[in-house]
Amino acid sequence: MLPPSVFILFGATGDLARKKLIPAMLELHQGGKLNKVSKIIVIGRRKLKTSELLAQYKSQITDAKDWPAFAKRFQYHFLEFDDKLAYDSLKKRLSKLPKGVQDNLVFYLATPQSAFDYIVDHLSRTGIAKRNPKSGWHRVVFEKPFGSDLKTAKKLNKCVTKLFSENQIYRIDHYVGKSFVQEISVLRWANPVFEHLWNAKHIEQIDIVVSETVGVEKRGGYYDHAGALKDMVQNHLLQLLSLTAMEEPKSLDPEHVRDAKSAVLKNVRLEDRHWLKEDMVLGQYSAGKGMQDYKSEKGVAKNSRTETLAAVRLWVDNKRWKGTPFVLFTGKALKEKYAEVILHFRTPSCHLFTMKNKVCGENKLAIRIQPDEGVKFLFNLANKYGGDIAEAKTMNYCHNCEQGMNTPEAYVKLLSDVFTGDQTLFTRWDFVEQAWKITDNLVEKAQRPILYKVGTRGPFQALRLLQLHPPILKKKMK
Amino acid sequence: MLPPSVFILFGATGDLARKKLIPAMLELHQGGKLNKVSKIIVIGRRKLKTSELLAQYKSQITDAKDWPAFAKRFQYHFLEFDDKLAYDSLKKRLSKLPKGVQDNLVFYLATPQSAFDYIVDHLSRTGIAKRNPKSGWHRVVFEKPFGSDLKTAKKLNKCVTKLFSENQIYRIDHYVGKSFVQEISVLRWANPVFEHLWNAKHIEQIDIVVSETVGVEKRGGYYDHAGALKDMVQNHLLQLLSLTAMEEPKSLDPEHVRDAKSAVLKNVRLEDRHWLKEDMVLGQYSAGKGMQDYKSEKGVAKNSRTETLAAVRLWVDNKRWKGTPFVLFTGKALKEKYAEVILHFRTPSCHLFTMKNKVCGENKLAIRIQPDEGVKFLFNLANKYGGDIAEAKTMNYCHNCEQGMNTPEAYVKLLSDVFTGDQTLFTRWDFVEQAWKITDNLVEKAQRPILYKVGTRGPFQALRLLQLHPPILKKKMK
Repeated sequence: MLPPSVFILFGATGDLARKKLIPAMLELHQGGKLNKVSKIIVIGRRKLKTSELLAQYKSQITDAKDWPAFAKRFQYHFLEFDDKLAYDSLKKRLSKLPKGVQDNLVFYLATPQSAFDYIVDHLSRTGIAKRNPKSGWHRVVFEKPFGSDLKTAKKLNKCVTKLFSENQIYRIDHYVGKSFVQEISVLRWANPVFEHLWNAKHIEQIDIVVSETVGVEKRGGYYDHAGALKDMVQNHLLQLLSLTAMEEPKSLDPEHVRDAKSAVLKNVRLEDRHWLKEDMVLGQYSAGKGMQDYKSEKGVAKNSRTETLAAVRLWVDNKRWKGTPFVLFTGKALKEKYAEVILHFRTPSCHLFTMKNKVCGENKLAIRIQPDEGVKFLFNLANKYGGDIAEAKTMNYCHNCEQGMNTPEAYVKLLSDVFTGDQTLFTRWDFVEQAWKITDNLVEKAQRPILYKVGTRGPFQALRLLQLHPPILKKKMK
Repeated sequence: MLPPSVFILFGATGDLARKKLIPAMLELHQGGKLNKVSKIIVIGRRKLKTSELLAQYKSQITDAKDWPAFAKRFQYHFLEFDDKLAYDSLKKRLSKLPKGVQDNLVFYLATPQSAFDYIVDHLSRTGIAKRNPKSGWHRVVFEKPFGSDLKTAKKLNKCVTKLFSENQIYRIDHYVGKSFVQEISVLRWANPVFEHLWNAKHIEQIDIVVSETVGVEKRGGYYDHAGALKDMVQNHLLQLLSLTAMEEPKSLDPEHVRDAKSAVLKNVRLEDRHWLKEDMVLGQYSAGKGMQDYKSEKGVAKNSRTETLAAVRLWVDNKRWKGTPFVLFTGKALKEKYAEVILHFRTPSCHLFTMKNKVCGENKLAIRIQPDEGVKFLFNLANKYGGDIAEAKTMNYCHNCEQGMNTPEAYVKLLSDVFTGDQTLFTRWDFVEQAWKITDNLVEKAQRPILYKVGTRGPFQALRLLQLHPPILKKKMK
């Protein structure tokens, strides 16, 4: 069972709270993990009764098992982010909670970034949150993005670290909480076969793909100032890159794991010898399949040059990866929704079969992260007996098939880790800093995005970066 | 289409002819591969009409499509193996066939070994078969076993090579004709990932297992003089060993492939440093699951010491395999019917996970040859999110699932190769010679077999040779 605590949620009336955080807390409650005496204080800028907000939450829940007991944990607290008095009354409210409970506080900031410094300032001023509480622990959780470039991220971090030390700060990237993202490490370090092959000697290229079918939806106003590089590459894709490319950590200790991840980003180079403009292709979706142009979306500038797709080839400059490019590829309004890490093995031989003018396909390992989870290995066998014509076959491990619906939602895992104080899956400041350095550099090199139709796979210039072996690509693309 | 020819089958009334050879010829006929003018002369030591024998054949067929046209190819020829006149009339019979047909002759000797020299002598004397026919080609096919030890094999070969040169001699081991046995080569040489791992540096042990559920059935009289070492290890298991262990051949040319296979056997050693009696365990089945003792089987000596199970650890003494034992395991009346080649990869690391007193399972590649066909790779993933407990998972490629019932019977492939003159899958004399050298050596070292019950997995002393990692074994053995 998790320790007794108060979960203080800023931005409680928002989408994230309703769709992800409250359902995740309910799952912890239903699973008997959330401590019986733990409380949840939900904070919003609308005048609401606790019961009204709970009714909203409940309407999002599919399995409301044990809802009444869960609902009893809640108190709604009305607060404008810059309203001094409201923080004072929040302090009073906390002081009325039982002693063992009020000592352990999680501040979850599911609010716009612009509110972060107000909130942190007031938490500091009132003494609600402390760097070194006399008893118990205080932790603060930030949703991504942390900053909107290196400069703003540094400013924000300066503000936050005035009050909190790094070991109190939990920067969430929910992608890292996905169970099959965590399996990348197990796959690598618990399997001598993979461990042995996991380097430039054996791998020709690694693709990291996050393909979305949705457009910007209601987020046009935010998205048009971000774009795919800042919204996706800076966090999710660089996280996947670091997990895929990292050296073996000294131990599974959170700091050792985060050391190894940050080290990858420190070694990222955007050029092999020199920067080629083909190394980065940006795209923007145009109307198709019942969806409108990106430029016509609500909140988006009519002449917007913001990219909704980015494909980037970059390099990890160390002994393990010298000579192996990594291609990051992500886009919205594409044909398929999936996320995958693909290792293309070098194909130096196949000598016996190519001698007869037959072509051998590549060996490829694909780690599927979503929507289904699993590992696939593409290899060659004879397509009929006789043995001199090789054909691609697939060895498959389907994680969903075996684990069924037991794979926990990322937020369940992440919240549980916040309560137990395990920072492994949270982004340490040096990682954020490096990720922004890389992203700022990319943004600086950005060309005007190429238009691609909704429901396609993106512009061919971007696909070409993934296209190691044209015949295989065709297959993959069919 | 295969070239026009006469298929001359000695032993036409036997089990092999009825169950395998005639159905395979029918399949070639139905598939439009058997030349329209080709004839089949079936030879037996019983007085029969062609129609009577055809009726017997037809009763074994499930799909009799196009039977009448197939039946028209047949002529039955009555012949005692040592009856001079009958060979003379066979010659006459052949001379009456059309010119293009009578030039190309396949002699298939599906008879007891004891008849081989009679038949060869008479074929030579009459001039029916020639080393260098003026036009066309003459080929002779022998069923295994070829000899019953090195001495008899040499004697037989001397007799056969008086008439035929090596490129006319097709020694069949039907195991080699199985489509997934041929895939071992493709798996190795068309996949850089496997090719790279396929050596002692990465592989701790290789198991080659052919497990049968049947007893000796009607073959007690023969079997009691052979035993598992001569009946199975000398041919099927050493063939699998050679395919698994061979170096890359210079090309897929039959002689290059057979060079590489023979080279493996020349390097086989029965001891690592010195012979241990634990390196070979023999077994004999005793009554169980509705089957009687081996010793009570028809044709078996009441006090027989013949082994119905053999487990042997041996070594291939070359650079690739220095330090990796091969375990050959075969037995009758066992729990399961299957044949598999299993590569156990070394597990030097798993450092991160064992640190926490967790044990990582091994990485293992299993190539399944029968009854189902496919490739499985055993690897480790976290058994729940969190990532510090690794658990065995399986990546699977099921060949049957994809190819369905299209996998051809071994004899269809092998007969087709005889007609086209491709010797790749047939056993060359130097392989036979080496295989008998190894087998004679094993027979010499044989201890009294340990009794094991019908329907079990065999005596534990034999299983121990396969038992690299006890916990994994338990799983496999469940």
